[in-house]
Amino acid sequence: MPPRQIILDTDPGIDDALAILLALASPEVELTAVTVTGGNCTLAEGVRNGLDVLALGDASHIPVAAGVALPLIRPPFTAPETHGATGLGYARLPTSPAKPSPKHAVDTLIDAIMAAPGEVTLAAVAPLTNLALAIRKEPRIVKAVRQVIIMGGAIRADGNVTPLAEFNVFVDPHAAHIVLHSGMPLILLPWDITSKILITQADVDRLLQAGGPIPRFIADATRFYIEFHQQHFGFDGCSINDPAALALAFQPDLAQLQTLFVDVEIASETTIGKTIGDFLGVTQRAPNVQLVVDFDNERFITLFIERMEALVRQIHGDAPAISSGNTSQ
Amino acid sequence: MPPRQIILDTDPGIDDALAILLALASPEVELTAVTVTGGNCTLAEGVRNGLDVLALGDASHIPVAAGVALPLIRPPFTAPETHGATGLGYARLPTSPAKPSPKHAVDTLIDAIMAAPGEVTLAAVAPLTNLALAIRKEPRIVKAVRQVIIMGGAIRADGNVTPLAEFNVFVDPHAAHIVLHSGMPLILLPWDITSKILITQADVDRLLQAGGPIPRFIADATRFYIEFHQQHFGFDGCSINDPAALALAFQPDLAQLQTLFVDVEIASETTIGKTIGDFLGVTQRAPNVQLVVDFDNERFITLFIERMEALVRQIHGDAPAISSGNTSQ
Amino acid sequence: MPPRQIILDTDPGIDDALAILLALASPEVELTAVTVTGGNCTLAEGVRNGLDVLALGDASHIPVAAGVALPLIRPPFTAPETHGATGLGYARLPTSPAKPSPKHAVDTLIDAIMAAPGEVTLAAVAPLTNLALAIRKEPRIVKAVRQVIIMGGAIRADGNVTPLAEFNVFVDPHAAHIVLHSGMPLILLPWDITSKILITQADVDRLLQAGGPIPRFIADATRFYIEFHQQHFGFDGCSINDPAALALAFQPDLAQLQTLFVDVEIASETTIGKTIGDFLGVTQRAPNVQLVVDFDNERFITLFIERMEALVRQIHGDAPAISSGNTSQ
Amino acid sequence: MPPRQIILDTDPGIDDALAILLALASPEVELTAVTVTGGNCTLAEGVRNGLDVLALGDASHIPVAAGVALPLIRPPFTAPETHGATGLGYARLPTSPAKPSPKHAVDTLIDAIMAAPGEVTLAAVAPLTNLALAIRKEPRIVKAVRQVIIMGGAIRADGNVTPLAEFNVFVDPHAAHIVLHSGMPLILLPWDITSKILITQADVDRLLQAGGPIPRFIADATRFYIEFHQQHFGFDGCSINDPAALALAFQPDLAQLQTLFVDVEIASETTIGKTIGDFLGVTQRAPNVQLVVDFDNERFITLFIERMEALVRQIHGDAPAISSGNTSQ
Repeated sequence: MPPRQIILDTDPGIDDALAILLALASPEVELTAVTVTGGNCTLAEGVRNGLDVLALGDASHIPVAAGVALPLIRPPFTAPETHGATGLGYARLPTSPAKPSPKHAVDTLIDAIMAAPGEVTLAAVAPLTNLALAIRKEPRIVKAVRQVIIMGGAIRADGNVTPLAEFNVFVDPHAAHIVLHSGMPLILLPWDITSKILITQADVDRLLQAGGPIPRFIADATRFYIEFHQQHFGFDGCSINDPAALALAFQPDLAQLQTLFVDVEIASETTIGKTIGDFLGVTQRAPNVQLVVDFDNERFITLFIERMEALVRQIHGDAPAISSGNTSQ
Repeated sequence: MPPRQIILDTDPGIDDALAILLALASPEVELTAVTVTGGNCTLAEGVRNGLDVLALGDASHIPVAAGVALPLIRPPFTAPETHGATGLGYARLPTSPAKPSPKHAVDTLIDAIMAAPGEVTLAAVAPLTNLALAIRKEPRIVKAVRQVIIMGGAIRADGNVTPLAEFNVFVDPHAAHIVLHSGMPLILLPWDITSKILITQADVDRLLQAGGPIPRFIADATRFYIEFHQQHFGFDGCSINDPAALALAFQPDLAQLQTLFVDVEIASETTIGKTIGDFLGVTQRAPNVQLVVDFDNERFITLFIERMEALVRQIHGDAPAISSGNTSQ
Repeated sequence: MPPRQIILDTDPGIDDALAILLALASPEVELTAVTVTGGNCTLAEGVRNGLDVLALGDASHIPVAAGVALPLIRPPFTAPETHGATGLGYARLPTSPAKPSPKHAVDTLIDAIMAAPGEVTLAAVAPLTNLALAIRKEPRIVKAVRQVIIMGGAIRADGNVTPLAEFNVFVDPHAAHIVLHSGMPLILLPWDITSKILITQADVDRLLQAGGPIPRFIADATRFYIEFHQQHFGFDGCSINDPAALALAFQPDLAQLQTLFVDVEIASETTIGKTIGDFLGVTQRAPNVQLVVDFDNERFITLFIERMEALVRQIHGDAPAISSGNTSQ
Repeated sequence: MPPRQIILDTDPGIDDALAILLALASPEVELTAVTVTGGNCTLAEGVRNGLDVLALGDASHIPVAAGVALPLIRPPFTAPETHGATGLGYARLPTSPAKPSPKHAVDTLIDAIMAAPGEVTLAAVAPLTNLALAIRKEPRIVKAVRQVIIMGGAIRADGNVTPLAEFNVFVDPHAAHIVLHSGMPLILLPWDITSKILITQADVDRLLQAGGPIPRFIADATRFYIEFHQQHFGFDGCSINDPAALALAFQPDLAQLQTLFVDVEIASETTIGKTIGDFLGVTQRAPNVQLVVDFDNERFITLFIERMEALVRQIHGDAPAISSGNTSQ
């Protein structure tokens, strides 16, 4: 089976960077493009980080397409306290000589999806502005996309920005509204789940033993992230939300899914960005997402660490290329 | 220590009726008035039920004051599917000859609280319309009331009317807004907690052995309620929300409390009535409630059954009057 | 024909004071109570002003009932820039020895209306909080009141507080919502009309010739008000909104009315307090007000001045008492 | 002076068709593209109508670019009762053999504006979805566009869809929000003004004397429109909103402008789509539009009729081509 085409729509971002690296390390998928929006950091920083992380992963051939800089309606909102001044925590990467794609992220999404109907999976791990614009610009992508895996929303968990709202949805709730009501095949991986997918300092220390710039980068980036999570949520470790979404593209059995109607509040400042799961069926609306209600954190963390180790070997040539057989067993 | 003055603001309602009976059975408190609003049933039905339940408990001397029939802003919303056509499930009580109080519930609240500053505890187990009007009519009750124990809100739990909203707050969210922002000393017992305070058929069967009309009433009322909870929530038993609030007036150690700022959504139809707990402190608002975050269900259910048994003995004279010494130790 | 019973619900306020004086000067009506709420000034200032203006008009027998101090939901909002530090512009009245009524404004409204069904006209020239509470406390007043004349709302005119909202409705839009949706027989005299009912310095100067404290008071109060209107709206004179509403109680032919459904925005900060007239019938809602769409300003101003002159004569005994025959023909 | 480049963003639509014809008839402007969105009719109908009207005007070389079919957030809302089943009233045009542009309307706008910074005027006479997407996709157009003339909004006039909202803004208020807050140089021609720019049957009859298919089309299209306006608004004639906006591109002195901050309601169903002009400056926001506050209707109607007559002559060859000297003097 040829690898599955995947696009990562992202605002890199520490855990976004990890998602990029996981995609590069996973032979089951072929990362065909990275599309960027503003979110964890500004659009310009995100594009810069995307290029640099791809270079780190020896994958500068993969296009990085700049997308929409601002949310549809709300003022921009970034997260320097979570992701550091430039979006990658304490990590400082060499500046990649690669240039951003001349094609806009919105068109990158549309063209890729329409070029291979039923083939492209989108992992959307940022505010959904790029995807929302793509849907309105070319509505046929709704039926043509294979699957959209969204990292976003707080369904039954507390929010991580406001009492009720999760970051990606909070930043552009109107975009989330467009996507949720679009009819696309959506898998929603909410903060409820990802807040518990923790990578610990011990995991990072183990990874450091592989040596080289990738483990070093991961250690520097996550150290900042772990400090934030300890202070803000009292977590021992940091939530690696985005790689978990990416993993669902090729290891769907990590998750248990529940079919559900999910809406998002866009009208009131008090609750804006709250994602609402209609578990009781009171809205009488047809389900629009498959919600991840359980996730095998331990298996995923093991998978992630092993893949990073394999990526190190792959790039530094001291190991055979990874095959899809050697995953997290 | 003389018993504590308590007023029950209620929309009787099956579990409201149980709260009235618990108050009558509890020597630590003196129920000085029952104030009624529309909610589980209409105002007229609620007044009727209040009078009849007091008569059942041999307490027709306690005034029942009719209050506000309609929510402040929203259309009326009752719950016949939860509480039966008349509000008391399958139970049919004899019509009490007692008349409602000539004094309005709003004035009953104001006058009682102002007559004994610092002495009156209000257990508010219905939509908060009466209390909201009392606060606006006589703002001095805010400082004069001893404590207000509210049964209402879904903080981290799903709602029981809409995906996010609990019944009492949903029926009159604007009233809840007035109360939450009033500065009153509030204990909030949310649906998060009460949904798990279940009385089972086995509990009811045990109680029936005490004989007489009160166990019969409780059995007939709760049978309907248990059927509803089984169908609607898959619960084995029924949530007796309101007696739990009442019990906190004299057994506060049943609950663990957390100081918190809680707000309520009143602007958007999608989320209206959602109660929002600011656990992360992002609103930078001073705490306005003590939220019940844990509750000793088992001890409470035992207390409730024992008190009902004692009430039977007390009324039927085949037992010494209950003293505050014989409670659930 | 005996004079018509009238209650003035007010937040005195310069033009409110003029409405009180006009009521005292008009034999067609008997002012049976002044009920006060917060608005132009605080509740306490308004009660003080009400007592003092009645004393000025030799009418300290008329009860002044303090009402609700705060709007239902929104924070308090007064208008010292319009009405001066104490609510009466540059006027400083002697402190009346009279005391406020022991009865609350809400009960004053309810009791008066229920005591004489079909007889009492309410001129409501302040935020509608008192009336809203009265409606919820005693819904039978909806059918029992003869007529409610509301000064409030900007239907097609710009607002005078926000781009869309008129002061009385802006201060408590939720109260306005309750009143508009109550089913009461409402006449709505909006800012559209009253903003053009101007009393000029020349009018005041003419009145001053009558001599004595009442003209002096009117001159001192309106001088502040005229200065505000000149600066803020570029008006030559000041709008005397409230006496115009009062006059409609006994000279209804001053106004042309249009039956209309009027709603009020309560959900969005951008437009809160906007009163919406459904002239096209798109809401398919039954009409709930009679909107004043035209008003005979000139006849009214003449009436007002003549009545004030007559009041001076009446109080100072140098003229026969006014009879209903000598009005503005 | 070479003609000014103009793009018409439109939902043709009867008066949109007239705007296209006016552009073709006006030597001062060069219509470089017609971009289409859903609104008066569906996107597909609008594209069809755009092609056919251009063919009628002998201008099939001008590209018609299909744009966004649906509003950003709200459900689609068309106006068959105003514009007839296919959008052009009683007119039935021959089907043009021309094809829509392969380039999307959003990219058509972006590319044209960025290709000639400071040169392109956009007349936006439809819901603003295309422009809003263009702004978010390529924010540099905000500074690069010469001017955007918007037909939309009801500032002080009643709405024509809801009591407060004008059609173009009502259909996609979120798009209007993006455009109004974009910083683009905007001229806003509201329904307040255009509702009074009436073309009468007498005007149409005069035009019919020129003979040929264009007058015939205008007569057939406007007959439906006039009937609607008579029934709905009691107008004698029909409002030709969109050609008036187009005319401002080359005859700006038709209008008197006022600099103003204008916002749009997007949060509440009661008032959604209301455009709010802050004439009193209470929002303290910097002006974002030049609002048309007066318009020379008579001169414009004369101009329009003369231009249509000249277009007939131009196409049918029985007259010299129009020069910019023979306009409405």
